[in-house]
Parts: sequence; C-alpha cells; structure tokens
Amino acid sequence: MPIYNPPLRDMQFVLHEVFQVTDAFKAMPRHAEVDVDTVNAILEEAGKFASGVTFPLNISGDEEGCTLNRDTHEVTTPQGFKQAYQQYVEGGWAALSCEPEFGGQGLPHVMNQCLYEMLNSANQAWTMYPGLSHGAYEALLAHGTPEQKQTYLPKLVSGEWTGTMCLTEPHCGTDLGLLRTKAEPQADGTYKITGAKIFISAGEHDMAANIVHLVLARLPDAPKGSKGISLFVVPKYHVNADGSLGARNPVFCTGLEHKMGIHGNATAQISLDGAVGTLVGEPHKGLAAMFVMMNAARLGVGNQSLGLTEVAYQNALAYAKDRLQMRSLSGTKAKDKEADPIIVHPDVRKMLLTAKAYAEGARALQIYCTLLLDQSHHHPDEKVRKDSDELVALLTPIVKAFITDNGHTATNACMQVFGGHGFIKEWGMEQHVRDNRINMIYEGTNTVQSLDLLGRKVLGNQGATLKKFGKLVAALVAEEGVNEKMAEFINPIAMLGEQMTKFTTEIGFKGMQNPDEVGAAAVDYLRVAGHLVFGYMFARMAQVALRAIAAGNADPFYVAKLQTARFYFAKLFPETVMLMRTARAGSKVLMDTDAALA
Amino acid sequence: MPIYNPPLRDMQFVLHEVFQVTDAFKAMPRHAEVDVDTVNAILEEAGKFASGVTFPLNISGDEEGCTLNRDTHEVTTPQGFKQAYQQYVEGGWAALSCEPEFGGQGLPHVMNQCLYEMLNSANQAWTMYPGLSHGAYEALLAHGTPEQKQTYLPKLVSGEWTGTMCLTEPHCGTDLGLLRTKAEPQADGTYKITGAKIFISAGEHDMAANIVHLVLARLPDAPKGSKGISLFVVPKYHVNADGSLGARNPVFCTGLEHKMGIHGNATAQISLDGAVGTLVGEPHKGLAAMFVMMNAARLGVGNQSLGLTEVAYQNALAYAKDRLQMRSLSGTKAKDKEADPIIVHPDVRKMLLTAKAYAEGARALQIYCTLLLDQSHHHPDEKVRKDSDELVALLTPIVKAFITDNGHTATNACMQVFGGHGFIKEWGMEQHVRDNRINMIYEGTNTVQSLDLLGRKVLGNQGATLKKFGKLVAALVAEEGVNEKMAEFINPIAMLGEQMTKFTTEIGFKGMQNPDEVGAAAVDYLRVAGHLVFGYMFARMAQVALRAIAAGNADPFYVAKLQTARFYFAKLFPETVMLMRTARAGSKVLMDTDAALA
Repeated sequence: MPIYNPPLRDMQFVLHEVFQVTDAFKAMPRHAEVDVDTVNAILEEAGKFASGVTFPLNISGDEEGCTLNRDTHEVTTPQGFKQAYQQYVEGGWAALSCEPEFGGQGLPHVMNQCLYEMLNSANQAWTMYPGLSHGAYEALLAHGTPEQKQTYLPKLVSGEWTGTMCLTEPHCGTDLGLLRTKAEPQADGTYKITGAKIFISAGEHDMAANIVHLVLARLPDAPKGSKGISLFVVPKYHVNADGSLGARNPVFCTGLEHKMGIHGNATAQISLDGAVGTLVGEPHKGLAAMFVMMNAARLGVGNQSLGLTEVAYQNALAYAKDRLQMRSLSGTKAKDKEADPIIVHPDVRKMLLTAKAYAEGARALQIYCTLLLDQSHHHPDEKVRKDSDELVALLTPIVKAFITDNGHTATNACMQVFGGHGFIKEWGMEQHVRDNRINMIYEGTNTVQSLDLLGRKVLGNQGATLKKFGKLVAALVAEEGVNEKMAEFINPIAMLGEQMTKFTTEIGFKGMQNPDEVGAAAVDYLRVAGHLVFGYMFARMAQVALRAIAAGNADPFYVAKLQTARFYFAKLFPETVMLMRTARAGSKVLMDTDAALA
Repeated sequence: MPIYNPPLRDMQFVLHEVFQVTDAFKAMPRHAEVDVDTVNAILEEAGKFASGVTFPLNISGDEEGCTLNRDTHEVTTPQGFKQAYQQYVEGGWAALSCEPEFGGQGLPHVMNQCLYEMLNSANQAWTMYPGLSHGAYEALLAHGTPEQKQTYLPKLVSGEWTGTMCLTEPHCGTDLGLLRTKAEPQADGTYKITGAKIFISAGEHDMAANIVHLVLARLPDAPKGSKGISLFVVPKYHVNADGSLGARNPVFCTGLEHKMGIHGNATAQISLDGAVGTLVGEPHKGLAAMFVMMNAARLGVGNQSLGLTEVAYQNALAYAKDRLQMRSLSGTKAKDKEADPIIVHPDVRKMLLTAKAYAEGARALQIYCTLLLDQSHHHPDEKVRKDSDELVALLTPIVKAFITDNGHTATNACMQVFGGHGFIKEWGMEQHVRDNRINMIYEGTNTVQSLDLLGRKVLGNQGATLKKFGKLVAALVAEEGVNEKMAEFINPIAMLGEQMTKFTTEIGFKGMQNPDEVGAAAVDYLRVAGHLVFGYMFARMAQVALRAIAAGNADPFYVAKLQTARFYFAKLFPETVMLMRTARAGSKVLMDTDAALA
C-alpha cells in the first residue's frame, strides 16, 4: 500500500529556520499576526486532510477516471472526489490565502504553498480542481470589475463554485495569438462568445454548483495576433441578482481527453455556442490579465512536481528498506536475512537521494518564491515590493521548468528502485511518472519557460534582475567564504555564479548576431540557472544545519540535511559542466540540419 | 494518424556501406550465399509486414489489453493479434535465423535483428510473443537433450508453438538465488514442478496451440543460492509421441498484471501445481543455461528501444513540420502561413535530432553486435569466434542499458515536441514512452547491467576485453588521424578513449579498497562507455559518408548523416564530461547517508 507522510519537519525547517517567515510576516501589516504556532497548526491540519482524505483516492481516481454523459454534457468525477471536495470547502481550505473582503482567511501565500505541496503529493488530479479555481480567483481579483468581484469572488473563495482558464484551441496552444474564439458585443453590455476550446483542466465536473470559466476570445474589431485577445468571464450557470443560479449558459463539455496521466481530472473539450459572458479588464488586453493567472499557475505546476517527487521518494525509500535482494558489494549487512535490503546498494541510494535532494531543493525554492510573492503584495516598502516582484518573475520559469524536469528524473528514479514492481499499477509508482509528465508541458512547455527566462527575464533587461539574485549569492559567499566547514557548499556556487555571468554575456553577444543562438542555449541555460538557485538554497540550508550542530543540537535532521546537500553538490550539481558545454556548442549544429530533418 | 516507415535506407547503409555484412557473410560457410539482393529483399518484406500488419494494431492493442478468463485460465489477446501472428507464422518469419535442421531458414542473426527492429517500432507488445519464443528456441538449441530438441524445436521454429522464460517470483527478481519453486524427480525421469512465478511475458495467450515454458526451479538436494537452480521445460499441453498435443499440464495463468505499458502483452502470474517437466542441461546449472536466453534477450531489449526511438522520431518529425505555432526567432520563415512550422525552433530541432542520433547510433551498434554474434557462431577461425564472442559479451550490457536509457530520453523528447497533444493517447506518443519504460527494467535492470559491465566484463578481466574494443577505436584514429575532415569525429573519441583507460584504472584501484566504489561508479561508467561506442559508430558512419561525398555521390543521405553525427558529438557526447565527474565524486556521498535515508 502506498504511503504518504506530510513532510512537516522539513517544511518547518525551511519556513522557520532558513527563511524565518514569521519574522518576515511581522514586517507586513496584513500578516503580522501570523506566528509560528499558527503556521504549524495549519500545516498539521493540512497534512491530515491531504494524507487522510485525498491521498486514498489517488490510485482509484487514476483507474476510474472521469466520464462524460454526452446527452447532458455533465461529467462525473471518480468516486469520492466530490465528497473530498465537500470536506475541503467545509474545512475552509479554499479560502486560506484569499482576501478577507471576499470571505478569505487572508493568510500568506506561503501557507497556501505548503497546503498545495501536500495536496499535490496526495493527489495531483484532484488538487487541480481547487487549484484552477484559485487561479481564476487571482485573475478576477486583479482585473475584475467590482460587480464581477461581488458576483464571483465570494463563491470562488468559499469553494462553492470552481473556476477554469480557457485558453487553448485545437490549432493553438503556445501561440495564443492564433486563437479564433469570437466575442460579439450585445446591447446589454454582455458578449456572446462562440468557439471551441480544448485541454481545459477541471473544465466540467460534478463537484461544485457552478463553474466560472475565464475565456480568451476576440472582439470583432480586434487586431490580429496576441494584441487582439480579450478576457471574459463565462459562468456555466448565469447568476441572478440575488446570487442564486439562473439559466444554463451554452458552454458545454463536448469531450474528455484520454490522457497519459491525471486521469482523475477532467480535461475537457469546451464548446461555446453563443455563451454569454462579461469582459474582464480592458478590450484586447486579455492576455496580460490572463498572465496573472498563468504566473500563479506556473508556480503551481512546479509545486505539483515537488509534491510528486516527495511522495515518490517516500515510497521508494520504504521499499528500498523492505525489499531483500542480493548482498552488499562491501559484505553482508543483514546476516539474519536471506538477502540484504536493497538500500545497501550505492546506485539505489543514488536514485533515492536524487529524489530527496530534488524535493528538498524544490521545497526551499517554492517557499522562498511565495514569501517573495507575499512581500510583493503586502510589504510596506515599495522597493521591497518591487524587488520581490522582479525576483519572483525571474524565478517563475525556473520553478516551472527546473522543478518539473527534476520531477521527471526523480519519479522515474523512484519507480526504478522498485524494479519490475515499479511498472505495475498497484504500487502507485508509475502513476507518479505519468502524472508528472504533463507538468513539463502545460502552462507553457519547458522550452517556452526557458525562452521566457533567457530571452525576456535575463537578456531582456541586460541581466539586471539576474544580478539581483547574484547579489544574494555573493552575500552568502562573503558571509561564509572563510568558514572552512561551509567551503564544500559555498565554493561550487561561488564558482558557478562567476561562470554564469560570463556565460550570460557570451550568449547575449551571440544572440545579437543570431537570435537562434538564444533559442539553442535556452534550455541548457535554464538548468544551469536552476542549479545556481538550488545550490544557493542548499548552501543556506547547510548553513543553518551546521550552526544547529555547532550549537549542540543533536537532532539527526541536521546531519541528514548536510548529507543531502553533499550528495546534491557531488552528484547532481555537476550537470552544469555538461550544460555549459552543450550550450556553447551553439545553434549551427541544430539549424544546419535540413538534410537530416528532411 | 501515427505513421511508420521502415528505415530501409539507413539499415542498408549500416549493413552494406559501413559493415559490408555480405563480405563478412562470405567468410562464414553457413552464410556465404547471403548476398546484397537477398538481404534487401528480406528487409523490404519485413518492413511491409511490420508497417502493414502489426503497426495498425499498436494503439488498439494498448487500449484493449489482454483479458484472463479466471475459470479456464485462458487469456485473450487484443483483437487482431492472433491473426497477425498467424500471418507471421505463415510468412516464415519465426524461422528466419533458426537452424535448418529444425526447419529454420538458417539466415544470419543480423537479418533477425533488422526484422525485430521494425517489429518493435510497429508494436513492441505484439513482438514480445515471437520474441520470447525465439529466446526459448535459443536456450533449448544450446542446452536441450536430443529428445527435447526433436519435440519442441520444430514447432518453435515454425512458430506454431511459442515459448516463455519463467524466472521471477514474488520475492525475487534480480536475485534469482532466492527462488523457491520446487522440482521433485519422478520415477519416469520427469519432474513435478510446484511454485509461483510472476512477470512472465507472453506467459499465456490465444495465439498458438501450445506454450513451452522454460522454468527455473530447485531440486530437492539443491545447494542454496544461485548454484542450486535447475532449468526445466514445462509445456502447457503435454506432447504425445507422435507430436500431437496431449493432456493439459497444470501450469496455469492465475492473474495478469496491470502495467504502465506493453498492455498488449500478457504479463502473467503463473502457478505451477505439480506441472510435469523435463530437465534442460545439468542439475543445478540452470542459471547458466538460462543465460543463453538472457543474453539474447538483453540484446533484444536494446532493440525494442531502438524500435521505439525510431517510430517516435518519425512521428515527431512529421508533427514538427506540420504544426504551425509562433515565428522563428531569426525571422519569419513561412510568410504565407499564419505561423511557422515548429521545426524552425532550435530546441524542437534539438529534441528531434536527439531521437534521430540515438536511433542511428543504436542501429549501427545493434547490427554490429549481431554480426559479431554470427561470427561467434559460424566463423571458421576459432580466434575470430572467440574474439567476437568476447566483444558481444562486453557490448551486451551497453546495448541493453545505454540504448534503453537513450530510448527513454528520446521518446520523452519526441512526446514533448507534440506539446499538450503528446499527452493525449490518440497521438500515440505517450504510449512509446510507457512501452519503453519497461525496457530499462526487465532482463536485468539497467543498474544490474552497469555492474555486469564494470564489475564482470571490464574489471573482472583487468580490462582485457575493453582493450580489444579500444584497439578498434585506436585503429580508426590511426587511419583517420591526419584527415582534417574527420577531425571533428575522430578527436572526441580519441580523447575519450584515453580518458577511459585512466578512468577505468582509477575505479579499479578504488574498488580494490572499497567495492562500493564500483557500485557507485557503475551507472555513470556504462554511459561513458556507451558514448565511446556510439562515438565510434558515428565516426565510422561519418567516414563512409565523407568518402561517398568525396566520390561525387549527391545523395543527400550522406549530408544528413554528417549533420546527425555533428549534432551527436556537439550536444549528446559531452554528457561524458559530467559522468566522469559524478563518478569520481565516489561512494562516500552515497553511503554516508544513514541519517538522510533514515
């Protein structure tokens, strides 16, 4: 039977010992009251919900999937999903980090981050229903009219209704400029929207009374391309003035995709047949409004892979301790047993530690990012808000692509620990691999993320934001540069930081001659940047662990953290050597290949 | 609709232009008559069978899977599988490389290799039914008694019956020394076999009249461990003296596994309830006899991933040319279209070329290996036979692990080219990823392969066999070292060859102090060795291509080959830099982790 134990100790370590989040909260009037006990109590309850309520539905949800009634256009979610969602709503979880004005609890994004990590470990497919809703909430909060906010936000905050983002069409995904869905203005100020959308996660289901679709479409006078796209809110059921549900709006689920994974989530084909909606934000500026939701979603996708990496690791570790097979190369370890547990084998440890290091690095980065997000919203100092916002923008593509690619490596490694049993559904390991696989694709493929990072976020402002992150690394290097015990953690990031400056400049120059050089280097570049960021996170965690040990703290957690950090720098971080070499190999070997790719 | 075009041109290039196989055949009396026309005619017909008969059943077979009737213990394979198998038998394909003495066509293994590459591209799950049979044929041919051969081989050769290998039990896979199935000698010289086997590929089905199980079990007086295992042949139906089928033997399918992939193949739980069998080979030496089958199977598994890499590549290439999305970074390419085809993007090309290079490198290596296999059996010179045999032994774990790991990278890259559509079953791409995933696990996990390579095949004889391969590399370097046009292909392998000698010695010394150093380095080592071998293959292919171009041959195939080789050395081969670094990081960071893995 698969297990999941919420990693509360590691979360608390990152929250309280590494980033001292409650001190950071004190600087923000909105969150000043959120103390350590509150944080820990919420974590504990969230962990109980995830492990106790949604985790038991993970394998069954995968097996059962969603079903569409083609006559009614209604979708039935897997058994138990609806009830679990009811519990989620009743527990107030949907409202955790939402605005009190609309019924939210007003807690920091950091808390939502930890809640969602655990929900994703427990059941990614289920978690996408409230996850998409929260994104819709964020977009309406930022760009909705007062009336739209009043109509939709209280219900999205409570979770009574859920939300979606309707972007993709059959002929366009990455390139939203091509989209064709039309919005016709009506005399009453509303719009009639007609078109076909695909890949709409949580697009139709039986878990909530209403579904609030955020739909990208074109107005009749819209310019071509991405500057002619507007955003509309299109509810499944119209909402009467008193808040009760009115007539069915013709926004129908016409099909469900058959997918590799996340079977429990309804990936809907949505047909809008003159569905009535209202405009969100300004005409033709829908993409910018939708990006509020997209950016949140990108951090959320990284979080999905963090969750899957953690749960895969926990199960692989348990199996490696339990499964007896062969003897240790360095001599029998379990003399009383007919074979040694496979955890004695170096490569089994390597697979386990790969997942563990990638989970812990990702957890630190995700919490760091969402703390920046809280500061960008609620810090009283404008400069802090601005700097935080810029850093989140820089880190978002790294979170999305680096953590999901690492999740691919990690879930596959954990599956491999199980040998043949890893391939068998009942063990649950292959599902983590399948579920994780979409994370590398949706909300902008990982290639798109890399172009966003290198092209827009780094070269787009001459490396100014990257330098801000570089300063944090430099400060840590300066602080710990003479501490011999920290040398093994500091030297690699000090060296990589310097190399990256040169590396970035190089690509920048080459890219000015030939923009394909940027496209050729971007994916490698993002992973190098990812390792610099993870290296920084591990160095900070090692710093805390060394100080705790020096202070006489005997908790083996700190020793464990140092071992994981050492493994990370020895076995994963050296990928950067290869990446800088392959990036430097340039674009010519890719582009001068018309004969090969004929 | 997924496509598959048999890669006949590339096969012919490798067979005739790179390895001149028909010249090699001339040196072997058995194969001296096999000329170029014969080879090409067989390839063409094999390609028609694969693309026309089994490929159309690939997606439907995955969707439908196999079903077990629990009352009769009979398994129904997906619709069309049985008829396709009938055509395979009628076409004589099962007999292609089998001994004429038992009805085979006596053609070289090289021909079977090419047939199976195409069958695997078309439908890995289906191909495993004849594939396992062929393995059982090989084991009985090498170790069966004259009576066993007479009873079973003609029917396995014709394909009227199929075979299996029954090794794994619930508590033992890698560690066969733990197996518990018992064989009790009977007065008539037969044995009653009792036990439970799992993960038996093609273990039960409706495609053939009889199933010949090769079963590992223990005799009553067997020593403990792997030296107490004997091999038995246990038919599903007994065979009467006249060759007709007799009574049902109690070897029953009691369950089918629910798996990540290869759904069309019945992965059976097999219960032997006093099933009657006869001993194959000597008592207690069953593992050695089974290794005949295992070694063939390991080459066969590499071939499965070669097949999947090729078909994934073909489909991703077609999609990348067809799908319009965004504009090229270096300026609009398709002015008449609303966007450029995604093949203009450098990273899309990188993903495509990764698959192409891994397919072409694997094809060359597989053909090279099976040619060595033919020489090891049929070359008149004993030294050539012995050298060939040793080289195959060295290369087998590389073929198995390197090609299947590359297949994982390649099928995932090709799926990624499809963006969101890659995750959708109808496109067929995610199935290649799922089907390939088992190849990294079965017939000895890739970690086990790496220990076989480094521990047994390299360090086990002080690098003697590795030196033999090194001499081939050195000879090519000497031959082309002053050819400027070859420098880009020769320099990397010359350098890596030297580095590997030092690297191997280093690990050998460290391993003498601490055997865990071998276990810690093995997986990285295998991939370094794999790149040396692929590098050698690409250098030889580039050599042929350059000579053809120099001779005025205008076929763009040769330009394409050079482009692919350049890409390989620029973007994939540099992985070795990372691998040698991570291997050198040693075992301590893996083994001193008891706190981390608590």
